[in-house]
Amino acid sequence: MDVNILLFNDFESLDAIGPVSVFGRINDYNLQYFSIGGQNVTSKQGIEINTKSVSEIDQTGILLIPGGQGTRDLVNDNTFISNLTLLTEKSKYCLSVCTGSALLAKTNLLNNKKATSNKLAFEWVKSNGEYVKWISDARWVVDGKFYTSSGVSAGIDMCLGFISDVFNKELAIDIANKIEYIWNSNKENDPFKV
Amino acid sequence: MDVNILLFNDFESLDAIGPVSVFGRINDYNLQYFSIGGQNVTSKQGIEINTKSVSEIDQTGILLIPGGQGTRDLVNDNTFISNLTLLTEKSKYCLSVCTGSALLAKTNLLNNKKATSNKLAFEWVKSNGEYVKWISDARWVVDGKFYTSSGVSAGIDMCLGFISDVFNKELAIDIANKIEYIWNSNKENDPFKV
Repeated sequence: MDVNILLFNDFESLDAIGPVSVFGRINDYNLQYFSIGGQNVTSKQGIEINTKSVSEIDQTGILLIPGGQGTRDLVNDNTFISNLTLLTEKSKYCLSVCTGSALLAKTNLLNNKKATSNKLAFEWVKSNGEYVKWISDARWVVDGKFYTSSGVSAGIDMCLGFISDVFNKELAIDIANKIEYIWNSNKENDPFKV
Repeated sequence: MDVNILLFNDFESLDAIGPVSVFGRINDYNLQYFSIGGQNVTSKQGIEINTKSVSEIDQTGILLIPGGQGTRDLVNDNTFISNLTLLTEKSKYCLSVCTGSALLAKTNLLNNKKATSNKLAFEWVKSNGEYVKWISDARWVVDGKFYTSSGVSAGIDMCLGFISDVFNKELAIDIANKIEYIWNSNKENDPFKV
């Protein structure tokens, strides 16, 4: 199973790399870093990453969408959103971290589904998806194939929760121990709710 | 102040990116990603990153050394360790995450100083620094300009602790809130001690 990590300029580094640190511990998962154009991408924290193009990946895998400053422009980028719509439709699971759920909301594929996002950007995120059932008090939210998390570090908690759902809780705990991460395993426990 | 993040092949992604997510919130800090040779570096999780060469950075800043699989070979790489020795001497502060402290131990600059590391690799790390005062029960350890953390995620806790020491605790809490990170702020509280 491929895990396809969608990167774009000014993405929040930890939104992508936190989840990758969890999924990288699953031997069956193959991590792919891609962007729509396949160019070099620079994160908000200045990390320059080489990416594959969207045409080079197996789009039926797990799609991971980080958030960050870059989402502010991308919600209005029709080419990006139409590409993301196709990707989201094809993917087996679709996971977003932080304001990545604003991008997902713009595809309309979250309409009538429950979702969450970063608490400090919550009103802006909501404005990008008026038909989404936004949950303001959740570390992460699951609705069908969609997993959406709160801000930045919450992506790690969500991905451990995903592993617990798809495999089992013992494996999630084992991975948390290996990365010495103090897992907030209750998705309804949100210390940063507003 | 420059924060110089030393990268090498097979470094553990979160060891570097966790700290970067904290330091990136300080306006006065300028993040620099470098390697000894200045080539592209690929992390254990397959992220290809463009780096500056060691000769292109201001070596008097804060040095951050991640750990990971790549350290297993580098402890025996004399060129790498002699470069790291010069860098460590010149740096104002020197921070390591996970098995990054094994690299630091090989410079001999940790001799007679307190330090810690990843708990699952602790015996191997100790074998690389017989004159270091290794602390097995600590989330992170401070000794002079040296900050060393336990495994992977502990680097985030340590860097928030560093911000608390160098600036103030309110700023550290503010950053933790912004990245929605549940900070283990007590460096003596180690849930993963062996």
